[in-house]
Amino acid sequence: MTDTPDNAAAAWPIAAAMLQFPGTLRDGTAITDAGPDHWRRLLRRVVLAGFDNVEIPSAWLRLGDLSATALGDFGAVVSELGLGVPGITVVRESIIHPAQGSQNLAFSHRTIDAAAELGVPVVCLGLHDALAPAQRDVLWFWTQAPPPKPSEPETYDLAVRGYRELAEHAANVGVELSLELYEDTYLGTASDAVRFVTDIGHPAVGLNPDLGNLVRRQGPVEDWRDILPAVVPYTNYWHVKNYLRMEHENGTVFTAPATMATGVINYRDAVTMALDAGYRGAFVVEHYGGDGLGVGAMSRDYLRGLLSEELALR
Amino acid sequence: MTDTPDNAAAAWPIAAAMLQFPGTLRDGTAITDAGPDHWRRLLRRVVLAGFDNVEIPSAWLRLGDLSATALGDFGAVVSELGLGVPGITVVRESIIHPAQGSQNLAFSHRTIDAAAELGVPVVCLGLHDALAPAQRDVLWFWTQAPPPKPSEPETYDLAVRGYRELAEHAANVGVELSLELYEDTYLGTASDAVRFVTDIGHPAVGLNPDLGNLVRRQGPVEDWRDILPAVVPYTNYWHVKNYLRMEHENGTVFTAPATMATGVINYRDAVTMALDAGYRGAFVVEHYGGDGLGVGAMSRDYLRGLLSEELALR
Amino acid sequence: MTDTPDNAAAAWPIAAAMLQFPGTLRDGTAITDAGPDHWRRLLRRVVLAGFDNVEIPSAWLRLGDLSATALGDFGAVVSELGLGVPGITVVRESIIHPAQGSQNLAFSHRTIDAAAELGVPVVCLGLHDALAPAQRDVLWFWTQAPPPKPSEPETYDLAVRGYRELAEHAANVGVELSLELYEDTYLGTASDAVRFVTDIGHPAVGLNPDLGNLVRRQGPVEDWRDILPAVVPYTNYWHVKNYLRMEHENGTVFTAPATMATGVINYRDAVTMALDAGYRGAFVVEHYGGDGLGVGAMSRDYLRGLLSEELALR
Repeated sequence: MTDTPDNAAAAWPIAAAMLQFPGTLRDGTAITDAGPDHWRRLLRRVVLAGFDNVEIPSAWLRLGDLSATALGDFGAVVSELGLGVPGITVVRESIIHPAQGSQNLAFSHRTIDAAAELGVPVVCLGLHDALAPAQRDVLWFWTQAPPPKPSEPETYDLAVRGYRELAEHAANVGVELSLELYEDTYLGTASDAVRFVTDIGHPAVGLNPDLGNLVRRQGPVEDWRDILPAVVPYTNYWHVKNYLRMEHENGTVFTAPATMATGVINYRDAVTMALDAGYRGAFVVEHYGGDGLGVGAMSRDYLRGLLSEELALR
Repeated sequence: MTDTPDNAAAAWPIAAAMLQFPGTLRDGTAITDAGPDHWRRLLRRVVLAGFDNVEIPSAWLRLGDLSATALGDFGAVVSELGLGVPGITVVRESIIHPAQGSQNLAFSHRTIDAAAELGVPVVCLGLHDALAPAQRDVLWFWTQAPPPKPSEPETYDLAVRGYRELAEHAANVGVELSLELYEDTYLGTASDAVRFVTDIGHPAVGLNPDLGNLVRRQGPVEDWRDILPAVVPYTNYWHVKNYLRMEHENGTVFTAPATMATGVINYRDAVTMALDAGYRGAFVVEHYGGDGLGVGAMSRDYLRGLLSEELALR
Repeated sequence: MTDTPDNAAAAWPIAAAMLQFPGTLRDGTAITDAGPDHWRRLLRRVVLAGFDNVEIPSAWLRLGDLSATALGDFGAVVSELGLGVPGITVVRESIIHPAQGSQNLAFSHRTIDAAAELGVPVVCLGLHDALAPAQRDVLWFWTQAPPPKPSEPETYDLAVRGYRELAEHAANVGVELSLELYEDTYLGTASDAVRFVTDIGHPAVGLNPDLGNLVRRQGPVEDWRDILPAVVPYTNYWHVKNYLRMEHENGTVFTAPATMATGVINYRDAVTMALDAGYRGAFVVEHYGGDGLGVGAMSRDYLRGLLSEELALR
C-alpha cells in the first residue's frame, strides 16, 4: 500500500465509543463476568457498524478486574473480530473521591497492567465522578450542575501525586496515560488542565482534549478556539464529539448533541491545529443521545474524509 | 436472491410518507379528483427520491372516495411506477368527533374496502383530529396544546365500539387496522394505548408506536424506553420519525424535528426491541419541517443499514 | 455527454462559500497581499472538499484592490485548480454607510471591473454593514439586533442612485449585480426588496434570495413560502443555507445553523418554485457554525440530487 493521503487516513485509528452499551446483560450479569461468547456477540455490533477500532470503557467491561485467563480470552475475541483497541478508559471513578479514592486508584493500576498485557497503548482517566442523582433524573446530565471541584490544596496535591504514581507504573510497562478535560474539575479549563498536567510533570501523562465536555454547558463557556491551542501540545488521545448551542440575548443557553460536522466545534480547523502541533494519536468518536454507535460511524467517515483532505495538503 | 441479511433488509418495506404533499393542485382541484395523470406525476417524486414503497394518506388522496374505475386507475399507476403500498392512513378524521364522527366512521369503512381492493394490508387510523386554529398559526403545531381527551365514559365506549366494528369489517376483507399513538388521546400514553387496544380486543387491531408524536411535546414526556416495550407486542405498523429535545433546569423544553439517527429516540435500540418481539411489519419514514421527502430518504437508508446489521446478528 | 437530468444537475454551478476563511495569514498579512502561492494553497482546500466552483468574498480577498498583474495571477490560480467563479461578493461594505459609503461605492466599482476582467458573471452586493460590537461578542451574531434601517428618504434615494450607477457600469462590462436579502435593510422583507429593486429599475440588477438571513432571527419572521414567490422573478444569484428554529408558546425563539436538508426551509419546494420561475443561475452553499466547508459539501451533494430529481420531472 503506497502512502497516499487516502491510505494514511484509512490507517489512522478511529475507535468506536461504547457509551450506549450497558454494563450488564438483561439478566443482570455484569459484562465483566459474562465471558467471551457475550463479549464477541456484543462487539460484533461495533464491527457491523464498520469500525476496526474500539475503546473499552470500564463502565462496560472492567478489564482491570479480569483474571489472566479471562484477559487472554478478551484479547482473543478482539483479535478474532479484527478490532484494534487504541485505548481503555476509566472515568467516573476518580482517584480523589472522598470514600472510593483509594480503591479507584488501585483499579486504575490494575487497568494499566491489563492495557500492557493486551498491548493497548493508552489508558484514559478523569477526575469527574459518578453522576449525581439530579443529573441521572434528567434527559441530558450536563444540564444539571456537577459538584464543584475540591478547593483544598491537599486534595489537589493528592491528585497530582496519584497520577504521578500511576504514570510511573504506566511508563514501566510501556503505556501512556491521558487525562480527559471535564468541567468543574482540575481539568475543566484550558489553563487549569495545563497547570495540572505540568504539575504532574511526567512524560507518560498527556491530555485528552474532549472539547464536547466543555462546550455543552448550558451557561458561559470558554471558546474551543482558545482551549485547543493551549492543550494540544500535551494531547496524546482524543475523544471527539460535538454539540449544538443556542444562545438567547436574555442569557439562556440550550445545548444538545450534534453530529461531528454540524455542531459548534469546527473539527476541520481543530484537526488542522492538532496535526500542525504534531498530533498522531487515536480518535474516539463519542455521541450521546439517540443512536450513539450510528452517529459515531458517521463521525468516523467524516473524520476520515477530513484527515484525507488535510494530509493531502501537507 | 439468497437470503442474506443485506437482501432481507433490502426487501423490508420502508415507505415514504407524504406529509409535505398538499391535498390540492395549484388550481384548487382536489388530488382525489385530479385523476391518474396527476397522480403519476406527483408519485414520480417519491420514486425519484429512491422509494419503492409509499403510504397513501387521506389528507392527500381520499382512496375511500374513489369510484371503482378511479380506484383501478390508481392501482394501475402505483403498479406502473413499481411502488408498493403497505398502508393507507386516515388521521385527523376521528370517529368520535362530536359533529363529524359518524361520517368519519363511514369514510374509514370505505377506506378499508379500498385497501382490500388494492391489496393494501393495513389501514392506519387515529383519534387525533384536525389541528386547532392556534396550532395552525405556529411554526410547529405540537408547541400548542391540543384539545384534551374526552373525559366521558360514553365517548370512550363509542370509540371502542367504533373500532371493533371497523375491525370486524377489516378482518372480513383481509385487512388489519393500526391505531396511531398520539398525545392527549386514548392512545396518548403506553398504558392508555394498551388498555384501549385490549378493550377493543379484536385480532385485526394493532398499534402504530409513533414515538415521535409523544416525545416532541414541549413539556414532560414518558421515556420512549418505557413506551415501546409496553406497546410492541401489539405493533403491526410503524411510523418512524425523530426529534431533538433541549431541556433547561428551569423546566423549559424546546423540540424540533431531527433526522432519524440524530434525535433523542435511539432507533438502533428501538428496532432491536421490536425485532426481538417479532415485529416484521412495514416502516413509514415521516419528517416534519424542511424537506420531509428528502429527510425521509435519509431515514430509509439509515433504517435499511440498521436492519441489515441487526439481521446479521441473528 | 448527453443532456440527461443527472448530467444537467452535475453541470449546474454550485459554489463553495468561504465564510470560515480568515482574511489574513497567521502572520497578519492580508490574503489580498499574500500572492498566488498562498491563494493556491488555500483554495486547494475547496478543491479537496469536492467543489468545482467557488465564490470569492471581499472579506477574504479584495479582488477590486488587486493590480492588473495580481488579478491575472489570481485568474491563473483558479484556472489551474479547475475552479469556476460564478460570483464575487462584497458585503458588510454598504454604499450608504455614513462615513465609508463613498469609498465602499468606489470599491464596488473596482470589483465590477475585476469581475469583468476575470469573466465572473455576477457581483453580489448588500446593504448590511460590519457587525456591531455586541454582535461580535456572541456565539451567533444574529441573536443580537442589528442597527435599524435608515428612516430618511434621502438615504433610500442615495441607495437607489448608487446601485443604479453601479448597474450602469456593470451592464457596460457584461456583469450583473445581485442584491442580497438581509434583515433590517431595504432588502429585509419580500415587499421591501421588490420595491427596492423596482425603484432601481435596471435590467442588470437582480436579487439574491438568501432566505437563511431572514429565518434565523430569534423573533417573528416572514414565512419563506411568502418571501420566495415574491422575489423569485428578480432572482439572478442564490446563497442557500438553512436554520433550525425552535419556538415556545411563551414567544421565545431559538435558532441555530442546520444542514440544507434538515432546517426549516424546504429547499426541495424552494428549488421547484425557482425552476418553475425560470431560475438558471448559480447556487452558493453557505453555513455558519462548525465546519462550514464540510457542511457546504453536504449541501452541494444534496442540492445536486434535488436538481437531478427536479429536472427529471420536466
